[in-house]
Amino acid sequence: MTYCVGILLDEGLILASDSRTNAGVDRVSTFSKMHVFEKPGERVFVLLSAGNLSITQSVERVLADSLGQGEGALDLYSAPTMYQAARTVGRAMREVFQVDGPSLQQHNLDFNASIILGGQIAGGEPRLYMIYSAGNFIEATRETPYLQIGEVKYGKPVLDRMLDAETGFAEAAKCALISFDSTMRSNVSVGTPIDLAFYRRDSLRLGHRQRIDDADPYFAKIRAEWSDGLRKVFEGIPNPDWPI
Amino acid sequence: MTYCVGILLDEGLILASDSRTNAGVDRVSTFSKMHVFEKPGERVFVLLSAGNLSITQSVERVLADSLGQGEGALDLYSAPTMYQAARTVGRAMREVFQVDGPSLQQHNLDFNASIILGGQIAGGEPRLYMIYSAGNFIEATRETPYLQIGEVKYGKPVLDRMLDAETGFAEAAKCALISFDSTMRSNVSVGTPIDLAFYRRDSLRLGHRQRIDDADPYFAKIRAEWSDGLRKVFEGIPNPDWPI
Repeated sequence: MTYCVGILLDEGLILASDSRTNAGVDRVSTFSKMHVFEKPGERVFVLLSAGNLSITQSVERVLADSLGQGEGALDLYSAPTMYQAARTVGRAMREVFQVDGPSLQQHNLDFNASIILGGQIAGGEPRLYMIYSAGNFIEATRETPYLQIGEVKYGKPVLDRMLDAETGFAEAAKCALISFDSTMRSNVSVGTPIDLAFYRRDSLRLGHRQRIDDADPYFAKIRAEWSDGLRKVFEGIPNPDWPI
Repeated sequence: MTYCVGILLDEGLILASDSRTNAGVDRVSTFSKMHVFEKPGERVFVLLSAGNLSITQSVERVLADSLGQGEGALDLYSAPTMYQAARTVGRAMREVFQVDGPSLQQHNLDFNASIILGGQIAGGEPRLYMIYSAGNFIEATRETPYLQIGEVKYGKPVLDRMLDAETGFAEAAKCALISFDSTMRSNVSVGTPIDLAFYRRDSLRLGHRQRIDDADPYFAKIRAEWSDGLRKVFEGIPNPDWPI
């Protein structure tokens, strides 16, 4: 399993992914699920991927090999807008489906993959998309400023409660890490290291990147304080006075 | 969708269910998902159900019509042990599958149903089971003293963090209601009223029942205090000091 989240803030974009891949519980590996394509000063794309690793690696390879090939190819460096860049990722997904989809079906395997694309192209706004396995996609908005893929449910409540478009970078990063903590506590197949990337609006180059492993002292502090805090809140709420 | 949870404590059993049923968003109704079969002084069973309402209603009807029919029938009142009672519910599930399963398949509908069974029979221990659509089942243990069906993920973290077999009745009820709050916030198809039933160990008769609707002052208090408390804990955790 996987957990990835992209957040679109007034300040810019935060992209975060775990790194655990498993094909059965006895085949657990570490693969980064974050890929960056960037022409500093002109455009930045960050991709996060979930689902069948053979599919998402193929999609990323197709996109990487097409860079600079020009319009008509699956060239993110030729996309005039972020919308067209999302279309390009969707077309790459469809191309891999044409090659691998029928054989996967013969083995009763779903063509299961999804990709979060965040970035900005000079002259446009920072944007955040989620591309489905069929190549169609949705975009994050100010009302719902985040998109998730993979094991999404456990980490969703804290995002819903704490995050809006005006949240600052540092506070949103804290929120994302609590979202990862909740997910990792409930689903053992999501695990560290966690990759975080920050993109500041209109900078047109990728900003800070942070890799968080099990020994990371800030992540350990968040986990402990969140857990202790929840317990204190729980204990502070009175019990019902029903005649039970 | 549905959310139901059963909790097995040293003090006894708590069973809780929402009451919202939907077949598409324009067909939302209120149905209790809790059914009680009881012979006071001898045995108590509480059933919670999730999944296709036509299936779970049929299973409950088969069980209700078989009460007192004697061994060989699907008679919960003849079951010598809670294990055999769970077997009986599983057999009722299989009987409904034989009748309805093939026709559902012709319409590409899954035979989707699950049932939580909690109770006690004189001479035995209180026990808690989850019966799957195939009629097989699992049992709660002291290590994992709760079982959930329906929309289970959003409400699981608080159970994992706050609950163990030694938790008292009132505190466990509070925990169950927070679990419902988390679920209802994230999944609009789970809704009030919430039915709660308490069964005190060795009492051999159902104890207090509580129905909680939207206007319930204790539930409103829990929701507000939990929400405010989480926000305070979140704000109390320092932001990362990365160069972002």
